[in-house]
Amino acid sequence: MAPSAAAATAPLFRDELIERGLLVATGVPGVYGRSGEFEDTLMRIDRIIDTLGAHDEPEVLRFPPVLDRQTFERSGFLDSFPHLIGTVHAFGGRDREHRDLLRAVENGAQWSAQFAPTAVVLTPAACYPTYPMMTGRLPRAGRLIDVLSYCFRHEPSDDAGRMQMFRMHEYVRAGNAATVLAWRTRWLGRAKRLVDALGLAARTDVASDPFFGRAGALLADSQRNQQLKLEILAPVANPATLTAVISLNYHQTHFAERFGITADDGATGHTACVGFGLERLTLAAYRRHGLDRKRWPAPMREALDL
Amino acid sequence: MAPSAAAATAPLFRDELIERGLLVATGVPGVYGRSGEFEDTLMRIDRIIDTLGAHDEPEVLRFPPVLDRQTFERSGFLDSFPHLIGTVHAFGGRDREHRDLLRAVENGAQWSAQFAPTAVVLTPAACYPTYPMMTGRLPRAGRLIDVLSYCFRHEPSDDAGRMQMFRMHEYVRAGNAATVLAWRTRWLGRAKRLVDALGLAARTDVASDPFFGRAGALLADSQRNQQLKLEILAPVANPATLTAVISLNYHQTHFAERFGITADDGATGHTACVGFGLERLTLAAYRRHGLDRKRWPAPMREALDL
Repeated sequence: MAPSAAAATAPLFRDELIERGLLVATGVPGVYGRSGEFEDTLMRIDRIIDTLGAHDEPEVLRFPPVLDRQTFERSGFLDSFPHLIGTVHAFGGRDREHRDLLRAVENGAQWSAQFAPTAVVLTPAACYPTYPMMTGRLPRAGRLIDVLSYCFRHEPSDDAGRMQMFRMHEYVRAGNAATVLAWRTRWLGRAKRLVDALGLAARTDVASDPFFGRAGALLADSQRNQQLKLEILAPVANPATLTAVISLNYHQTHFAERFGITADDGATGHTACVGFGLERLTLAAYRRHGLDRKRWPAPMREALDL
Repeated sequence: MAPSAAAATAPLFRDELIERGLLVATGVPGVYGRSGEFEDTLMRIDRIIDTLGAHDEPEVLRFPPVLDRQTFERSGFLDSFPHLIGTVHAFGGRDREHRDLLRAVENGAQWSAQFAPTAVVLTPAACYPTYPMMTGRLPRAGRLIDVLSYCFRHEPSDDAGRMQMFRMHEYVRAGNAATVLAWRTRWLGRAKRLVDALGLAARTDVASDPFFGRAGALLADSQRNQQLKLEILAPVANPATLTAVISLNYHQTHFAERFGITADDGATGHTACVGFGLERLTLAAYRRHGLDRKRWPAPMREALDL
């Protein structure tokens, strides 16, 4: 059988997970309910991340999955990834407009096309709300913030590893270049300890973001050449292809310039973040060890305290 | 001093929480970051809810904070609460439209007004994704589902107890009328045990939803007269006014008709839900016992396993 035909007939991992009851279909590609067991596995993996991160005593903050427009506009996300945004819109009418709205729904028309933009967009990455908090001069030791939230990326897909809404646990470090780079290197070691504990067949690679448009390819090349983005990849949706499960990003002065973040010595600050894709890590564990969690290898079950 | 003047000069509870570092301002009313301690308190309160709910062995599901449009349209939310909706929109252009978009951002124009509606809206209540899962004939014992998610309500407010994004932990019961009503009565007792454990000065009342428009007042009256909505209220933003922290709703056949849910005997099903406002319960605890958690009364600290 030709490889393409094999790929076409192999069941989608997403469908296997739904069949098993670990995910619940909602009719929208990339939007799923999670079973109690799936959530429990995800939380146990996250607890390992918490333990690895606790050494540095980060400032823990939890933001809801929406971001104020002002921060979003300043962040530069619109320059690079307009295709992934989700903006939030609301109805501002009265009784008359309400009747028109209900008629549009009944007729199967695009009933929210005229809704007005609200003050928020869906959070595209868990770290974004932290940058405006750091405006001004950083303390001598810099800042270290631990965030976790649902994130939205508008990329409808049948790939279980490419959800439109997923959780990202991130650590954000701000300081001077040396501090920030040394911190990222330390996390590279910790991240490998995590994937080892999960028994994943993972590898590290230099990577780039999915920049938009014709200029995007140049930006991606530049990002690769400077090794700004490192990823730890593992099989998620398919046994044969690798998907990023952890990402370690050095932003140089990108966010510091946009949010006026200054290092202790008065120079423009540098930032970096380490992001854990919690759904992807969880899916990678099921992919590697099978859908029956009770049969997972003993060291793995021990690591998860199962 | 006249009461109105006193109200005008008293600090907002929201500002006290921000000052203390328990909440983080984002520039958008009703959208806050939560400190590690705030989250920890919220999770400990939620663990009490879990313990109360575990007796019935619910089916645990966790949905992301977006809902597919089809379910949303069928739910009837648009009829009653169009003013609270948040729809999600996305950019569909190419390089040329991207340049226009960036120019609009630079000029301070409404850059997302032309974005196209996506297949999702923000979840208005945690229970909504469960109804299409129950389409068809229910098992003899009915269904009982445990859900928890961030929910969105477009009502920008400085009232700490009226957030635009907040978490709701809900139990959803489906079956015949007698089953569903007996279950709600049982939860009324449990809900009182929860507010007692938290030491809240709470009371129960018959309530109504904030229905939209001129017809809304009639709907609210009808809901009250039939005692379809019960609430447990406690001081949240102000010591003197009460805000619902728990809501117990009997939907009669509303959702069953819209989603084709049939009881075991072939009749149209009935549903009810019990919803816990996790941020409101947490805020009510800080309101009642003060912002210094270490000084909370011993029985309360014991209930939270602090």
